[in-house]
Amino acid sequence: MGLFSKDIQTFDDLFVHTLQDIYYAEHQIVKALPKMIDKATNSQLKQAFQAHLGETENHIKRLEEVFRLHGKEPQGVTCPAIDGIIKEANEVVGEVEDKNVLDAALIASAQAVEHYEMTRYGSLAAWAERLGRKDCAALLQQNLDEEKNADKKLTSVAESAVNRMAA
Amino acid sequence: MGLFSKDIQTFDDLFVHTLQDIYYAEHQIVKALPKMIDKATNSQLKQAFQAHLGETENHIKRLEEVFRLHGKEPQGVTCPAIDGIIKEANEVVGEVEDKNVLDAALIASAQAVEHYEMTRYGSLAAWAERLGRKDCAALLQQNLDEEKNADKKLTSVAESAVNRMAA
Repeated sequence: MGLFSKDIQTFDDLFVHTLQDIYYAEHQIVKALPKMIDKATNSQLKQAFQAHLGETENHIKRLEEVFRLHGKEPQGVTCPAIDGIIKEANEVVGEVEDKNVLDAALIASAQAVEHYEMTRYGSLAAWAERLGRKDCAALLQQNLDEEKNADKKLTSVAESAVNRMAA
Repeated sequence: MGLFSKDIQTFDDLFVHTLQDIYYAEHQIVKALPKMIDKATNSQLKQAFQAHLGETENHIKRLEEVFRLHGKEPQGVTCPAIDGIIKEANEVVGEVEDKNVLDAALIASAQAVEHYEMTRYGSLAAWAERLGRKDCAALLQQNLDEEKNADKKLTSVAESAVNRMAA
């Protein structure tokens, strides 16, 4: 972002800036997930995180395809939102000793990440459609659908086992 | 948070910590919304933000009631996630000159805030239920429902007018 000029002039600029934001965010998530897999105790939770790591790597590839279709080089831009969400996750998780309570905290932290991604992919898919980029919108919608499913899966693991063990 | 001891020992501690987190977040949102109302051009959007400011003040009162029912003093704890989300909103919004593109950026920023609140209230309501605090769960669920409706309202304003004007 420039200090002296406004860098987002058009709707297309806003679309590309937000693509860069989520591209950076997905890379931070790929770095964060292995630590969460490592800390999780419940086997369903470990598996859910492991599966989502594979999906996240795939989301990055889809985003690179969106950049390419839109005639832009894939590039990230620092995203204070995901940095804050991951910082908070690390702080809270670092404060929990009990394994079962830790699993509940890990789920809540991961769901905060999912919700951030859901909101960004929701805006991006709608904007791509409006910009006449149905090809990009379809790819962004696939990422959105997988984030929603990952979030539902975490709710199901929380409700079926983790919260009961933690309480 | 202590530096030498782990402050979250039990599921109840995790519940109270997360209550403090969202209590801080709601206060930051009350501070941020008047600036967003001021910047919004579309009249439906201005009204939606204005209505949500009133709801947010009410969410704080409900949270204070949850603290009271649970035998705790209402207290906030710094929440790097909401700080990051609001910092990013200010950065992006500050980069946009065009009024219509700005409205689209304001909606996306507000929806990132809504999604953060939805995930926290979702966890808190489920945890309260599991801790046998149906009274707290009902209040948290009311806040959750209002956040979900505020998010839907913003999607509707985006789709019915703002994105078309911005594109």
